[in-house]
Amino acid sequence: MPATAGSRRCGSVSEVPGAVPVPGTGQALAAAVARLRADGVGVVLTGAETTLPYARDRSGHDPGDVVFAVVVARSVADVQQVCRVSAEFGVPVIPRGAGTGYAGGAAATEGAIILSLGKLTAITGIDPDSGLCVVEPGVITSEISAAARAVGLRYAPDPASAAISTIGGNIATNAGGLCCVKYGVTRDSVLALDVVLAGGELIHTGHRSIKGVSGYDLTALFVGSEGTLGVVVGATLRLLPVPLGSVHTIAAFFETAEQATAASVDLFATGVRPSMLELIDGVHLSRIDDWRGSDFRARGAGLLLVQTDGLAAAAEAALLRDVLVRSGGEIEVTDDARRTDELLDIRRWTSQDQAPRPEITLNEDFAVPRHRLVEMVRLIEATSARFGVVITILAHIGDGNLHANLRIPRSELGPDGALPERAWLAADAMIAGALEFGGTITGEHGIGMLKRRWLRTELGDVQYGLQRSLKTLFDPQHLLNPGKVFLD
Amino acid sequence: MPATAGSRRCGSVSEVPGAVPVPGTGQALAAAVARLRADGVGVVLTGAETTLPYARDRSGHDPGDVVFAVVVARSVADVQQVCRVSAEFGVPVIPRGAGTGYAGGAAATEGAIILSLGKLTAITGIDPDSGLCVVEPGVITSEISAAARAVGLRYAPDPASAAISTIGGNIATNAGGLCCVKYGVTRDSVLALDVVLAGGELIHTGHRSIKGVSGYDLTALFVGSEGTLGVVVGATLRLLPVPLGSVHTIAAFFETAEQATAASVDLFATGVRPSMLELIDGVHLSRIDDWRGSDFRARGAGLLLVQTDGLAAAAEAALLRDVLVRSGGEIEVTDDARRTDELLDIRRWTSQDQAPRPEITLNEDFAVPRHRLVEMVRLIEATSARFGVVITILAHIGDGNLHANLRIPRSELGPDGALPERAWLAADAMIAGALEFGGTITGEHGIGMLKRRWLRTELGDVQYGLQRSLKTLFDPQHLLNPGKVFLD
Repeated sequence: MPATAGSRRCGSVSEVPGAVPVPGTGQALAAAVARLRADGVGVVLTGAETTLPYARDRSGHDPGDVVFAVVVARSVADVQQVCRVSAEFGVPVIPRGAGTGYAGGAAATEGAIILSLGKLTAITGIDPDSGLCVVEPGVITSEISAAARAVGLRYAPDPASAAISTIGGNIATNAGGLCCVKYGVTRDSVLALDVVLAGGELIHTGHRSIKGVSGYDLTALFVGSEGTLGVVVGATLRLLPVPLGSVHTIAAFFETAEQATAASVDLFATGVRPSMLELIDGVHLSRIDDWRGSDFRARGAGLLLVQTDGLAAAAEAALLRDVLVRSGGEIEVTDDARRTDELLDIRRWTSQDQAPRPEITLNEDFAVPRHRLVEMVRLIEATSARFGVVITILAHIGDGNLHANLRIPRSELGPDGALPERAWLAADAMIAGALEFGGTITGEHGIGMLKRRWLRTELGDVQYGLQRSLKTLFDPQHLLNPGKVFLD
Repeated sequence: MPATAGSRRCGSVSEVPGAVPVPGTGQALAAAVARLRADGVGVVLTGAETTLPYARDRSGHDPGDVVFAVVVARSVADVQQVCRVSAEFGVPVIPRGAGTGYAGGAAATEGAIILSLGKLTAITGIDPDSGLCVVEPGVITSEISAAARAVGLRYAPDPASAAISTIGGNIATNAGGLCCVKYGVTRDSVLALDVVLAGGELIHTGHRSIKGVSGYDLTALFVGSEGTLGVVVGATLRLLPVPLGSVHTIAAFFETAEQATAASVDLFATGVRPSMLELIDGVHLSRIDDWRGSDFRARGAGLLLVQTDGLAAAAEAALLRDVLVRSGGEIEVTDDARRTDELLDIRRWTSQDQAPRPEITLNEDFAVPRHRLVEMVRLIEATSARFGVVITILAHIGDGNLHANLRIPRSELGPDGALPERAWLAADAMIAGALEFGGTITGEHGIGMLKRRWLRTELGDVQYGLQRSLKTLFDPQHLLNPGKVFLD
């Protein structure tokens, strides 16, 4: 039966109460679904139409023709019961937030229950005096920021997807974003977690104090574990003061992305720690111009967007500006709110660009040490030429984290939607470079389905085996998001 | 045989080549020592005089009358071989840096090899362009700071022991310090680790890039694991820019420690993030006056030491000063280097005070959310009165991390040096409070031997069991620092 969107076999989950289900099969799924319905657990969906929106994430990964069901949890108790039933019937569970991931981590797999946390949306506590916020996993990240602002504070992490992603998803991937360069990634703002384990038991890791070293740091272990070790059902987040003073924004256009990259590295010699330092290449600028009628591309093929904040924002921006001018950039500095928004829109738009295109995208996301960035950009450009693949660059350049996106014309896809081999070879070449430079295959997207092929190379055989054993310790039956992160 | 310093039985390690050793006994230790000597591994010490300095740390914990040997590693290969021989003969290994811990984590135990990393002191690489430094575990922390300064950067963590502790020890306990309130704890500066596993295999966790989410965060798991999961033999550390501008220091004296605490909490409403925020109580001020002829105690019984840095340091200090004045403090503000040093010496002295005293100290180290700090200080004072124990307070108050030190007259110790029951009851009462307030039993010292009795209470039975299983996964024979962290 060919895979066609809208006719997934999830509608065919047949309920066979009374029969003895075989674990890992559609029968087992049907039996588990029957039990969950009988127990009144969450909202159980099995029809093709209602489950289809849960089949994939934003990575473009196509899960193919798979049978799965969806349970929308209404409480922590629902999550615990799903995990208990999963263990009893041997049915995989795939935790899911808003499905905005770029690595296929939340994609459906055969015979699984997609466990949606998207309706657990309460901000259950906010404590301005301690700088804490307690949330359920389905809260949209920007709503946490809004709640913090309402009490004069801020939730620092700001993934580009903040308006559409959930905090649970951010935690599952240890999401980064635009201001990590000064304020850190998701992990740096997570103090404590409530986690449902594979067997359904609930634990509370961490503490509400800023510091703590009691036992192993399971909070850090769960952050970024992509739903393979447990299901995050609550989080205590750290809130920071809103920076004093005004924000200063610099747009610096360079002739090439390589020149812009070199200039970004030079900025650090000033001793200023910018609150944002982003790179956008010429292809992205052209697309924005096409879409919005702007003329950014005419100003250069490499744009740095830089911000400073705090009481010294103006003085810091002046120091950075001097370096950018010396590096040959065409510079614009502003602290005007409207103009700042227009400039930031360039970056926001690139992340939210959902315009229909005659191509699909393979998102790479490696990170390298700062002093190898120029070499990495050269390698990306050489790889593009060598394999005849358009590769665009968008980067949290201040963190050394590059999004190199391979654009593959749909006409070049295989009959089953498979990417052409040269796309993978191009990705292989860039990944090999990133690792050789001391970097990593993924800075913030996670491994999911799409980066599994390189994980063993990065970790080495011994550590890979140790990480696999860790997975087995937390999830002996391999029922939590199985098939993700590890290839075998 | 009574325990007396200087006559430990470590001198009695007898070498019995040829005999079949029984694991976990002095015989096994002797056989392991013979093998290590034959293999030419490190410098092997077994005499009482040479091993005595390795028996304890700064916690005051007395390991008693134990047999142990010492191997001073000269290379990573030495560490690997010690771990292999440990596994073969069933001999425990206790990794050790400078022995400056406050929880007994490095204390000797029966039949163990103390594995000293203190001679692995190379700074093997420093990369100013990327802001990275690669070090061996035995480097003294302040030497890393000096090496960073030499290239215009800084290693941010600054535990009060920085002049005498090793980076390996800092990593083992996830050490905090004076500037965590703005710049984070040790974990926040560790990008990658080289770790020798229980069986002797070497793995490399993390990456040299600032960000990375490939697989589980084993780097964070090893940081703070107190030598119970593996032996850290190398670390890649993040270096930050030296803050621009001048540092401004405020000394604010209050009538009571409670008043100083309340004022410290109020500071956060300004939106300023100080680079240091420390509390020192009246007992400490009196002791400094006695020792140095100063008159700090006459100015109050609660001192806040506050710093701001960066280009806006003066403006930020002014905002903080206003709050402290309104809170009734007697205030002194300076950006003079000499006067700053004099004020900081108050804090440094309290950590390095090794003056002989007719008392011993039980160091508590809990942390609570900021808005519970005043209650916590009240509870400490009430506990002191209730159990008739002098309890002094020194705090990284900006992080909510309190060092409450119980001072027990030597005359009240048991014949075997045991603390009187009321000291433990007083500690129990404070720990119960810290946990009730949502805090932790240890903010930065670790569990070691002295805080094991409370760990299960903090973690809960399920998480405690999970953490024990994690230990067993990494160290199936329980040979890495056994008996530490977990009670059973």
